[in-house]
Amino acid sequence: MDLEHLLADLAQGRTAALARAISIVENGRPGFEQLLGAVHPRLGRARRVGMTGPPGAGKSSLARLLVEAWRADGCTVAVVALDPSSPFSGGALLGDRIRMEAIALDPGVYIRSMATRGTLGGLATSTREVCDVLDAGGFDRILIETVGVGQSELAVTGMADSTVLVLVPESGDGIQTLKSGVMEAVDIFAVNKADRPGADTMAREVEITLGLRHRNGVSGSPSFPGWEPPVLLTAAVKGEGIDALVAALDRHFSWLEASGELATRRRVRLAARTREVVDRAMNRWVWQETGADEVLQNRIDDVAAGRVSPYHLAQEIVSGLKEGSRA
Amino acid sequence: MDLEHLLADLAQGRTAALARAISIVENGRPGFEQLLGAVHPRLGRARRVGMTGPPGAGKSSLARLLVEAWRADGCTVAVVALDPSSPFSGGALLGDRIRMEAIALDPGVYIRSMATRGTLGGLATSTREVCDVLDAGGFDRILIETVGVGQSELAVTGMADSTVLVLVPESGDGIQTLKSGVMEAVDIFAVNKADRPGADTMAREVEITLGLRHRNGVSGSPSFPGWEPPVLLTAAVKGEGIDALVAALDRHFSWLEASGELATRRRVRLAARTREVVDRAMNRWVWQETGADEVLQNRIDDVAAGRVSPYHLAQEIVSGLKEGSRA
Repeated sequence: MDLEHLLADLAQGRTAALARAISIVENGRPGFEQLLGAVHPRLGRARRVGMTGPPGAGKSSLARLLVEAWRADGCTVAVVALDPSSPFSGGALLGDRIRMEAIALDPGVYIRSMATRGTLGGLATSTREVCDVLDAGGFDRILIETVGVGQSELAVTGMADSTVLVLVPESGDGIQTLKSGVMEAVDIFAVNKADRPGADTMAREVEITLGLRHRNGVSGSPSFPGWEPPVLLTAAVKGEGIDALVAALDRHFSWLEASGELATRRRVRLAARTREVVDRAMNRWVWQETGADEVLQNRIDDVAAGRVSPYHLAQEIVSGLKEGSRA
Repeated sequence: MDLEHLLADLAQGRTAALARAISIVENGRPGFEQLLGAVHPRLGRARRVGMTGPPGAGKSSLARLLVEAWRADGCTVAVVALDPSSPFSGGALLGDRIRMEAIALDPGVYIRSMATRGTLGGLATSTREVCDVLDAGGFDRILIETVGVGQSELAVTGMADSTVLVLVPESGDGIQTLKSGVMEAVDIFAVNKADRPGADTMAREVEITLGLRHRNGVSGSPSFPGWEPPVLLTAAVKGEGIDALVAALDRHFSWLEASGELATRRRVRLAARTREVVDRAMNRWVWQETGADEVLQNRIDDVAAGRVSPYHLAQEIVSGLKEGSRA
């Protein structure tokens, strides 16, 4: 890989270079860590917004309107879709696809859907890395769309500067979800399909849950004093509430900068990233460069027969690795 | 922890010992790997069945009927619920909860819901370990219920001997999901809510997709020649199709045993488990027993300022670890 060349093309915003760099990073091809290392000093320009919520909440429609609003403000936008059923990923009803085409043809918009195979942990890591490439590629906004059921809702918060949770009046399990630790990680709530019955009730329930936490001695957001997560009503199909969402995101970003929280979040993300890269390298080392895999293969019959437990065998392998390290 | 005592109580099927052992394993408390190592020779008695599918497909109702059918056959049953909105997890509508109570009060049934925080990878590991405790606890059947959106559908296949995918006629993204690699991992398809329009069409679509793969040169299941994944129609609300599901599971288990596939699947699972335990131990070693975390903390300001990339710092840390190992 001619890294210098690719980086120069990327800096000039060439789409082919962008696609190539992303594919190198997403697939972990040789040189991908060098590439990411080289773009590192340039990062931090893009605002990263995560959008999550249960299937059918209308995230994609809301996302599309958000992209259009940002474009109208003169921002370039990259969309990273982690939801395989998202119209951004090509998996959608015909009507959605047609509406999506208008923005897909806009040269100021770049859409990338990520393969969602493998573990969520691995996916989170490579998504963050793809976002770095997009940041280095000069996009003003990066929108990360995930389908959220419990743990995946939490995963997006580690990728974005601002996290929007999209709910619908029918989200019977909405409050349920919030209780299980998601709420603390959300910066803005959007109750979508707000023209349906129950939207106000839903919004109030979220506000009450937020308020209860206040009264329990936390001011501002549960996790971030000074920021009160707004609960917005949106109706993506009618295009309602988008201006308020854009404004809330701007307000949140200003708060992130002013409070020092932006620097903190990015620092935490970078430390986590470094840990992930170390773990990935150690994993590669253990299974590809030491004799660990051979030991495993030689002894697996004993494990299958119940003579040795996986824990015993693992301890044997680990002792071998550590002993090498102490010798 | 008095391991001997706990193991003896567990062997006698004492519920308190079971709950205690599971909680030790689920939370990774001191001695949990010893406990798992000690039960290892006793494993392999229980049949593990995974049930997955999109939210709202009626998995929980189907699961409840399956549990009742197994109980009627005289089997003891453990249910592991990974879906936070499952009635097994207590997160459900009142009607569901009432129906669930009948089986929850049956002493031959043990229900455990798993906390779904953290990464899916970690969750899969601890679910497998909890299933081991249940296996050692003497249950005849273990039913693992997960909510499936893409990657989580795949995760359950690594936990179970047989995997059931529950779809509904409305699963517009059903075939979409199947295409993305899930189909190969499914042993039995259940098109639930079969009284609704479109159920036959849905079932046929699945069959056609399966059939197309046949014609592409694969006989039997895409992954497992000799097993043709049946596509069943069920209507959990009316109690229809449960006998066929139980029969299909029995047939699948007989095939697993006769073909040698059961031994293969369990062997693969044990090798994966050993790898996970090694990775977990190495991770603990790297971040808690070496100076790696200190190096990270000391240099993170340089990373945040863009002077050093996470990749460069990670390489420094890894080199240090490996050098220790070579010295």
